[in-house]
Amino acid sequence: MASLPSWMFPQRDASAADAARARQDTLTKPRGSLGTLEDLAVTLAGIQGGPPASRPAAAVLFAADHPVARHGVSAYPAEVTAAMVANFVRGGAAASVLCRHLGVELRIVDVGVAHPYPVDRVDLDTLDAGAPRARLRRDPVADDPIFDLRLEDALPEAVYERALRAGAAEIDALGADTRVVLLGEMGIGNTTAAAAMTALLLGLAPEDVVGAGTGVAGAALSRKIEVVRDAVRRVQGADPHRVVRAVGGKEIAALVGAAARAIERRMAVLVDGFIVSAAALALVRIDPRARAGMLFAHRSAERGHASILAALGARPLLDLGMRLGEASAALAALPLLDAACALHAGMATFASAGVPDRAPPGPA
Amino acid sequence: MASLPSWMFPQRDASAADAARARQDTLTKPRGSLGTLEDLAVTLAGIQGGPPASRPAAAVLFAADHPVARHGVSAYPAEVTAAMVANFVRGGAAASVLCRHLGVELRIVDVGVAHPYPVDRVDLDTLDAGAPRARLRRDPVADDPIFDLRLEDALPEAVYERALRAGAAEIDALGADTRVVLLGEMGIGNTTAAAAMTALLLGLAPEDVVGAGTGVAGAALSRKIEVVRDAVRRVQGADPHRVVRAVGGKEIAALVGAAARAIERRMAVLVDGFIVSAAALALVRIDPRARAGMLFAHRSAERGHASILAALGARPLLDLGMRLGEASAALAALPLLDAACALHAGMATFASAGVPDRAPPGPA
Repeated sequence: MASLPSWMFPQRDASAADAARARQDTLTKPRGSLGTLEDLAVTLAGIQGGPPASRPAAAVLFAADHPVARHGVSAYPAEVTAAMVANFVRGGAAASVLCRHLGVELRIVDVGVAHPYPVDRVDLDTLDAGAPRARLRRDPVADDPIFDLRLEDALPEAVYERALRAGAAEIDALGADTRVVLLGEMGIGNTTAAAAMTALLLGLAPEDVVGAGTGVAGAALSRKIEVVRDAVRRVQGADPHRVVRAVGGKEIAALVGAAARAIERRMAVLVDGFIVSAAALALVRIDPRARAGMLFAHRSAERGHASILAALGARPLLDLGMRLGEASAALAALPLLDAACALHAGMATFASAGVPDRAPPGPA
Repeated sequence: MASLPSWMFPQRDASAADAARARQDTLTKPRGSLGTLEDLAVTLAGIQGGPPASRPAAAVLFAADHPVARHGVSAYPAEVTAAMVANFVRGGAAASVLCRHLGVELRIVDVGVAHPYPVDRVDLDTLDAGAPRARLRRDPVADDPIFDLRLEDALPEAVYERALRAGAAEIDALGADTRVVLLGEMGIGNTTAAAAMTALLLGLAPEDVVGAGTGVAGAALSRKIEVVRDAVRRVQGADPHRVVRAVGGKEIAALVGAAARAIERRMAVLVDGFIVSAAALALVRIDPRARAGMLFAHRSAERGHASILAALGARPLLDLGMRLGEASAALAALPLLDAACALHAGMATFASAGVPDRAPPGPA
C-alpha cells in the first residue's frame, strides 16, 4: 500500500486560539456565559489559524451503493441512492433545502451509484448550468468494482486508494477561502458498513452498533446484525485502512480522504452523523492529529454513534434525534458556528461599552 | 386582585398540526428521520393554526433592577443593568449582535431600571431613529416602587398588575404577522428572584435552586442561598400570582404578561433560560393551557433550571452551557425553527421527486 496518500496535518494554532480566548474575556458578558459558543470561536481560531470564521462553508456529499444491500438490510431499495442524487441536484432533498436556506454551496460526488439517475443526465446538467442548485460530479472511481462486505473485502486496494483520492480531489476543488466543510453521504446500505467499521475499530459486539438505519426493525434488524457479525468475523483486527477497505465503501473512503484534505487545508470539518463519524474515527485511528480539525454536529439517534463519539472524546453541538445523513445534521448545526463567529466579531468590549466589568466587594 | 388581567388561551389547532404531520410523512426522507425538526414543524403548526412559520420573529427584553442586589448576590454591580440597556440599544450586547445577524427585531422595555443609562437619552434616541438597532421604551411602571424580596414583598399588588400589563402591551405593539416571540431579560439580581420563585413553586430547597448566576461562588453563593432561604420562609405557599409578586420582580411579571399575550395571539413563545423559564412556570401554574404555546430553547447551566424544565415536561432544543439571559439562548435556537420551517415548506415529496417510498420485501 505504498501508494496510499499521506497527510501532513497542521498543529492547532495556539496563538490564534489564545487571542480568541482573550477577546472572549473582554466582551460584555460574564466570562464563559456563552458556553459552547465561546468554545466554538476559540476552537475555530485554533483550526483556521486566525480569527474564527464559519463562512464560506461548503457541503460535500459522497454517494455510492453497497452490494451488501442485497441482504435486505435497509428499509429502502438500492435504487433510492440514484433517486436521491437526482433529488439533491433538483433541490428537493433535505440537504438541498438547507443549503439554499443557509447559503451553502452543495457538491454531490457520485463515487459509485449503481443505478441510473431517474432523469436524463442532460436534465441534471441543464439544471446545474442554468440555475445551479448543486454541482454533481461522477468520479471515475464510480465505475470500479465493489463487493459484498459480508462475504469478501468491499474494495480492492487500488479502488480504496482511488476513493480516498476522489474525496481529496473534491476538497481541492473548493475555493481556498472555504472555512468550514460539512461532510455528508448517501448510500443505501451504508449504516451496515458503518456499523461493521465501528464494531471492528472499537472492538464492540454487532448488536451494540447496529441500529435502525433508514428504519429497519424486527427480522430485518436481525438480518442486519447477522450481516455485520459475518463481516466482523471475516475481517477481525482494527487496522483502520484495512477496516475501511474491507467493510466500508467508496463513499466512506472518499469521506476519509475529504476530511483529511480539508484538515490539511485548515478548513474546519463539521462532522454529520453516524456514517461520517465512522469515517472520522477511521481517519483519527490512521493519524490522531486529524482529531483537532473536527467538530461534531449531532448525536445521532443511530445506535453505535454514541460509542464513536465517546472514543473520539466528542461532545456534539446538537442532540435532536436526527438519523437522515446527507449532511443534514451538520447543516442544522452550522448556524451555531455562524452565531459564535458573529458574537466573537460583533460584541462590544467592557471598555468600549463602558460597562463595569467587576463586582463590588460584597458585604462581609 | 379583581383587576388582574385574565387570558383566553387558544387550544392547539389539531387540524393544522395533523396537516403538518401528514406533509412531513410525504417528504423525501425516512419518516421521523429529521427528529425534532419534524416535531417543531408540527408543534408550530398547532400553535399558529396554519403552516408552520418562524418569521417574522421578534425579541422582547424586559429590564429592571432588584433591591435584593444590595445583599451582594451578583458578581456585578447594579449599575450594570442600565449599562447593558445602553449596550443593547447601541448594538454591542450578545442579543444585539444575534438580532442583527438573524434579522430579528429587538425591543427593550425598561420596566424598572434604577440607575441612569450611562449615555444621554438623546444619544439613544438618535441611534434609535437614525440607524435603528433596537427600540427602547421606558414603561411608566419603571417608576413604581419595588422592595427587597428578602424582607418584604417585592411588588405591591398594583405594581404587579401594571408590570403584567406592561408586558402584554409590548406584545400588542408587535405586528400581527409576528409568528415567534423570543423573550429575554436583563436585571442584576434576577437569578436570586427566579431561584426564590422556583423554590416556592416547586417546593424545593434553596440550595437546590440557587446557582452561580453571573458568576458568584464561595461566600457570595452562600449569601445568595441565605437570601433565598429568608424569602422562601417569609412567603411560603405556591400561589403563582403571589409568588411572582412577593419574590419576583417587575421584569419577571412583565415576562408573564408578555408570554400570556403572545400565546393568546397564537405567536409561539420561544423561552430563553432560567429567568424566563421561571416566569413561564408561573404562567403555567396560573393557567396550564399556556404550556401548549411555549417552546424551550436551551437547558441553562444555571442550577434550578433542570427542575423547571422537568416540571413543565420541556425538552429544550439546545444544551450549550449558556447562562447569559437576554434572549441569547432563544436567539441561538431560532435557526432550528427556521430550518424546520424551511424543510417543511421546501422539500420534495416522494411522489414529486419520483423516489421509491417503500422497501422491497426482504429475503425470508
